[in-house]
Amino acid sequence: MRISELSKASGVPVATVKYYLREGLLEPGEAVNARESAYDDRHLSRLRLIRGLVHVLGASITQVRGVLEIIDAPDLPPLKAMGRATAALPAVGEHGDRTNATEPDRAVAVLQSLGYRFEPDTSTVRQLEAALEVAEDAGITLDDEQLAVYGEAARRIARADFARIPWQDAELATTFAVLGTALYEPVLLALRRLAHHELGIELNEGQGDEASDEA
Amino acid sequence: MRISELSKASGVPVATVKYYLREGLLEPGEAVNARESAYDDRHLSRLRLIRGLVHVLGASITQVRGVLEIIDAPDLPPLKAMGRATAALPAVGEHGDRTNATEPDRAVAVLQSLGYRFEPDTSTVRQLEAALEVAEDAGITLDDEQLAVYGEAARRIARADFARIPWQDAELATTFAVLGTALYEPVLLALRRLAHHELGIELNEGQGDEASDEA
Repeated sequence: MRISELSKASGVPVATVKYYLREGLLEPGEAVNARESAYDDRHLSRLRLIRGLVHVLGASITQVRGVLEIIDAPDLPPLKAMGRATAALPAVGEHGDRTNATEPDRAVAVLQSLGYRFEPDTSTVRQLEAALEVAEDAGITLDDEQLAVYGEAARRIARADFARIPWQDAELATTFAVLGTALYEPVLLALRRLAHHELGIELNEGQGDEASDEA
Repeated sequence: MRISELSKASGVPVATVKYYLREGLLEPGEAVNARESAYDDRHLSRLRLIRGLVHVLGASITQVRGVLEIIDAPDLPPLKAMGRATAALPAVGEHGDRTNATEPDRAVAVLQSLGYRFEPDTSTVRQLEAALEVAEDAGITLDDEQLAVYGEAARRIARADFARIPWQDAELATTFAVLGTALYEPVLLALRRLAHHELGIELNEGQGDEASDEA
């Protein structure tokens, strides 16, 4: 297909496709003549992947390049790829200048009480620390019961995610491990907000009140 | 305290504090003399809240203003406030230009199969649709088993969140409902990534391999 068709099929503007080509995120198409190249389904699926990383996760071009390199690395075991991609991708909450120079004391205490096995000096532990700190600063510290439910829910979800990974196909397993880490996050968050809304409906019915505005 | 002390205590630069004052997000301090004002703990807690919304959620100034108006609205029932704040805050995944002009067919099918009570034409349903679409585009569609686990986990978490809300104090309940919706999200995501890491350690041990790089 031509670049205009690739653009249409992926929903990515032609100018942006050209930018990804210049940045080397997308391999050049096959030259048809001096002005035109032909693209195939591999280009389309790569383009959809880049779009997902940029639009859903807010990944920078540098971060996208990092993830693509991990996916394309030959013979990298899926679990290693998953760990590296997690470190390479933006954490939810990485919008600001929060540097977390201090030790992640809150996060370590929570993880220990939940019985998690973890390494303290990793980006995800620092992300948890920042999230706990912000909730505390805002005066809505999570209590132990709540954290226990969050911790157990996260483990159930992780087991379901791992059960979905096609381990027998190393390349496909890597794609699942790398992308599922990040791309399933908005699914979970949307479902949590919808579960809040559902509980709100039930509570309001119990009170004989009208339902809340919007989920 | 002086503006410099307010800045130090909140971790927000003086120039940014002045910007929030100009934008009306923060109430003016009490004038001490022609050049200086005094600020108190209410200013500090409001400033921490703004910082959390901006830095953790990536909220815009307009979105912050919307949430503060909801929190400050007298006599707004906490559940209504929660619904409105959810609609006002940025959804995870709102980084791009995805317009979701199409019907949220995937999301509706998933929610029906999970037995969720929902209203189809809401921002959260559209957020779920976008998230499912991105996963599908990337070739890692969630399967039914996985979605059932996500849906049940989200409901458990929502119940724990509601149990934490101090309903007897309407103002505090509103703060919990509005902020907990959003500020607990990064906690959940960090725990999920850490649960992946933990499973990875266990899998590697089972294979006699070394642990993955980074969580």
